[in-house]
Amino acid sequence: MAQINLERFLDTLQKSANIGKTANGGLNRLALTATDKEMRDLFVSWLKAENLAVRIDDFGNIYGRREGKADLPPIVMGSHLDTQPKGGRFDGILGVLSGLEVIRTLNEHNIETMRPIEIINFTNEEGARFEPPLLGSGGMTEIFDKTYVYEREDKNGITFGDALTTIGYCGEKSQRLQEAAAYVELHIEQGPVLEVEELQIGAVEGILGMSWFEITISGKGGHAGPTPMHLRADALLATTEIIQKLYKTSQADSDLLFTCGRMSLTPNIVNCIPDEVVFTIDVRHKNDQNRSNFIKEMRKIMEHVSKTHQVHAEISLLWEENTTNFDKEIVDIIASKADEANYTHKKLYSGAGHDAMYMNRICPTAMIFIPSIGGISHVEHELSLDEDMEKGIHILMQTTLELANKS
Amino acid sequence: MAQINLERFLDTLQKSANIGKTANGGLNRLALTATDKEMRDLFVSWLKAENLAVRIDDFGNIYGRREGKADLPPIVMGSHLDTQPKGGRFDGILGVLSGLEVIRTLNEHNIETMRPIEIINFTNEEGARFEPPLLGSGGMTEIFDKTYVYEREDKNGITFGDALTTIGYCGEKSQRLQEAAAYVELHIEQGPVLEVEELQIGAVEGILGMSWFEITISGKGGHAGPTPMHLRADALLATTEIIQKLYKTSQADSDLLFTCGRMSLTPNIVNCIPDEVVFTIDVRHKNDQNRSNFIKEMRKIMEHVSKTHQVHAEISLLWEENTTNFDKEIVDIIASKADEANYTHKKLYSGAGHDAMYMNRICPTAMIFIPSIGGISHVEHELSLDEDMEKGIHILMQTTLELANKS
Repeated sequence: MAQINLERFLDTLQKSANIGKTANGGLNRLALTATDKEMRDLFVSWLKAENLAVRIDDFGNIYGRREGKADLPPIVMGSHLDTQPKGGRFDGILGVLSGLEVIRTLNEHNIETMRPIEIINFTNEEGARFEPPLLGSGGMTEIFDKTYVYEREDKNGITFGDALTTIGYCGEKSQRLQEAAAYVELHIEQGPVLEVEELQIGAVEGILGMSWFEITISGKGGHAGPTPMHLRADALLATTEIIQKLYKTSQADSDLLFTCGRMSLTPNIVNCIPDEVVFTIDVRHKNDQNRSNFIKEMRKIMEHVSKTHQVHAEISLLWEENTTNFDKEIVDIIASKADEANYTHKKLYSGAGHDAMYMNRICPTAMIFIPSIGGISHVEHELSLDEDMEKGIHILMQTTLELANKS
Repeated sequence: MAQINLERFLDTLQKSANIGKTANGGLNRLALTATDKEMRDLFVSWLKAENLAVRIDDFGNIYGRREGKADLPPIVMGSHLDTQPKGGRFDGILGVLSGLEVIRTLNEHNIETMRPIEIINFTNEEGARFEPPLLGSGGMTEIFDKTYVYEREDKNGITFGDALTTIGYCGEKSQRLQEAAAYVELHIEQGPVLEVEELQIGAVEGILGMSWFEITISGKGGHAGPTPMHLRADALLATTEIIQKLYKTSQADSDLLFTCGRMSLTPNIVNCIPDEVVFTIDVRHKNDQNRSNFIKEMRKIMEHVSKTHQVHAEISLLWEENTTNFDKEIVDIIASKADEANYTHKKLYSGAGHDAMYMNRICPTAMIFIPSIGGISHVEHELSLDEDMEKGIHILMQTTLELANKS
């Protein structure tokens, strides 16, 4: 059986890690910047060196195509080469460069497949320069309208469309992926589960549905000294009671994820009773109905606590996405390939969004996770181990090969 | 019986309200600024017009002295003319200008007193420009070392000492108040009690002791999506549990005041688990032992919750002041004067600090409160009603007269 070349892969990964390198060994490679262009140019040269047919679509997504023996829809691997402003060297980069390593291995061993194989680098997955994230895959799969994508602005007022033209990566609509038999994306887990459970491979069954809310609790301010407790309408006391009640409610369902990540107080002074608290709630669950039930309970709790504390609660939905369920067959193939290789593994859901989320709308899709050390990502010291990456790329190759030879 | 002249007082108050006036009808008259100097100059001219002996001490405190028939320690009235950056027109100004109105009334009716009467405008009571507050009264009563006071810096790095010299109000140490028989300060309540209980006068028994803490809860960050609840050490979940438990504990003692006024989260992003929360706790009680017991309980709660949530709690004391108990005799005089005038009244503690707190260390002291509409202060729309101010000044005069004729 052909084996991937870890040394070659690590060398390629290191070349990527030099483009936009930060002082702390991370990467700052925001989408459609000069640094992104430098990485793209290098990536295109690597694709060409493997005799792949390179094309660029109207969202700047880069495709490398290796023909198959039959004229059938391709098997696609991919992810993204852009990073957060203080991002790590792995993240989506692993998904793109591991696809390249798979193709290099196939070429090296002259392995032909029935179906063509494509590799994609999606534009602006991170959403760190242009919000929202997933603009390249979302545009290509027509989740987002093209005008909407082009008009997104970075914090300096530069549009996605202008930035795309500036770096010379605005291709044709006709170059988009037209049809695919499957999409497989290798990614770091970005969470602690595989590491904590000492597992090597995650066969990703889908992406958790989520809802983001911004809650504004309006009470009554006042001086902390002369205002007796029974005459207060303290927005923070109401907020902390809401959060504790929601937390207790969330504990009844071990699959529910509940996070308050952002909070601000007004006037935010030691001896002033907070008259307003604004905070966010992030709820995720693999079952949309369970998430919806929790949100109903959340509204009840807020209403109840608001009455008790004589405050007003305003609930505003910032973002909502139902659960993505990946293709069971591909998930099973990933799991069986891990079994064959004697890699420990489990099926799990991704808590974070990925290009695979939108690809799943147009073709059978699944993802492969490898452990993130410490469960962390989107930080400069993000880390995945060489041996874990080697195993991940092996499973990506075996899965792709099996899919590419299926009719 | 001589009556104070409300119209004259209101005209004087209005002249003060024009110096540093904000667009919303409040005052921005930070200590030792050009605006403060303008107010001081006018105040000194008013003192001189009443034939008072004016002197300035080395903290810029301004004294106006009306001699008595006997060479005895004086009865002192006073407060401060400085304001918060968005302060109101009443606050300490009422205490200074009502003292002036008392003196004008005595002069107008040729009323002689046995003891001299002095009126003081204290420097930088607010602490809005130079922290901490009460620098003028604290310096004069030697709570604060003179060098410490002079070296306080505003946010532009200008010292108290330099600012004092710049506006020409740096007097001599020998001009400080040497001895006093009593100190009486009229002030707005800054809380809602008198208004809610429909009372006209508060005879202030003291100032609540207080402790300020800054608490740092350190947990573990992570992405809100891929991190299961049982693997989290969420600093905000721990914080909200601590605050709720403290709040519940505080409810057992209706005299205890418990406020968390300031809070900040790190990294403060919707989909990031907070890895650090810094928040403040302000605890006040008229009984120092009760406050101390609550703090002991607070430490236990933090230790317990920190274990449960696997976070670390660091407790740092920012400020602590024991309860000030005013002179019972003066408090009784105030209450009896209110009775004589048929004003509804009650004895109560001040939740906020005042110059009277430090004056209490050197002479028998008490305060008179009048209602604050809506219980609010330190805001541009702070309000006390004309009829309430009239009653307050009347009680200040009657109390001062009684004290000034006592041997």
